Amino acid sequence: MKAKNVSIQTLRRLPLYLHYLKSVKSETPTISATMLAEALGAGDVQVRKDLGSVSGNGRPKKGYVTEELIVDLEDYLGCNDRTPAVLIGAGNLGRALLSYNGFSDYGLEIVAAFDASDAVAGTKAGDKTVLPMSKLKKVCEDSGAKLGIITVPAAGAQDACDKLVSCGVTAIWNFAPTVLKVPPEVLVENENLASSLAVLSKHLSENGAAR
Amino acid sequence: MKAKNVSIQTLRRLPLYLHYLKSVKSETPTISATMLAEALGAGDVQVRKDLGSVSGNGRPKKGYVTEELIVDLEDYLGCNDRTPAVLIGAGNLGRALLSYNGFSDYGLEIVAAFDASDAVAGTKAGDKTVLPMSKLKKVCEDSGAKLGIITVPAAGAQDACDKLVSCGVTAIWNFAPTVLKVPPEVLVENENLASSLAVLSKHLSENGAAR
Repeated sequence: MKAKNVSIQTLRRLPLYLHYLKSVKSETPTISATMLAEALGAGDVQVRKDLGSVSGNGRPKKGYVTEELIVDLEDYLGCNDRTPAVLIGAGNLGRALLSYNGFSDYGLEIVAAFDASDAVAGTKAGDKTVLPMSKLKKVCEDSGAKLGIITVPAAGAQDACDKLVSCGVTAIWNFAPTVLKVPPEVLVENENLASSLAVLSKHLSENGAAR
Repeated sequence: MKAKNVSIQTLRRLPLYLHYLKSVKSETPTISATMLAEALGAGDVQVRKDLGSVSGNGRPKKGYVTEELIVDLEDYLGCNDRTPAVLIGAGNLGRALLSYNGFSDYGLEIVAAFDASDAVAGTKAGDKTVLPMSKLKKVCEDSGAKLGIITVPAAGAQDACDKLVSCGVTAIWNFAPTVLKVPPEVLVENENLASSLAVLSKHLSENGAAR
């Protein structure tokens, strides 16, 4: 079963379900939407609807065979497809993403890292050598990477983005605190750490804890 | 002027405005909401409303004196307040956050890093020595930290969260791909990298680029 109309909100929740199911599969051979909702502190109706949209294997009263639901979620999320990506900006955050092994569960493979600084290109980042920007086009062509990860400072982000787009990248994961301009066919997913921090700080100051 | 009813959506956008204004302040002494909206690819009405909610210094036709608007935004976001925080989980992501200097612009100071693993506690992370969990309570008390950052694997996240809450932490920045259960007074901000990745991967597969 392949769902066609899964909302972006549902899509964002699916990895959380998958992660939880994988963590309990050995002791939980079957699971209902209600059980999953309870475990994750989420709404019963929402979880039922989310699961129903990606798996046709739920049984009334019984719920899902955990292993089958895992397969359906992995299939829907493309976890077994390989998604090659390139990363621009081999600073601390870039290096952390390069060495974070959790992404491989979702099929992501960062095939190469680039940096505009001559001082950084040529250094090691994890098991890779950081490449100069001049190699970007060839690496994108050879690897088929259509996903670009931007971990440069804000001032350099649009330039990095433009270079990625000119190399055929159609999805950009932007960690720089700036708004990128892209052609309509390119999707940008912003990871705004400063925005999250603003929400947390405001909560603290309103509750009298910041000082 | 202190705004009272700023929505969480507005709050998330304010750091982006601030970041942009700081990057252009030397060559842009005054700026209108329209100019800012255009530069960031955002809606004119939205930016005007957002700015109006945190600054009373806008002038019809003229817009804002950039420096004044920066001060109002920094004031509203508490950038000049010090927000001490503790971090649990000194793996790659934790170390990246520790050495990322962009957070200090928002007043965040990670005062100490902890790790449940005996092999990790005692090692260096940036300019800090990673501490064992047994020191958490004392550090929270001494530093007044009310913000906790969780960068442990999902399986250990609830335990890290419970420990933070028991030490008086009331705001949690969760990078683990799991849903945390907390008392009602505690705010959790989830940074779900896997969710972002799901959105990007789906865009690629629907556009025939994943392989």
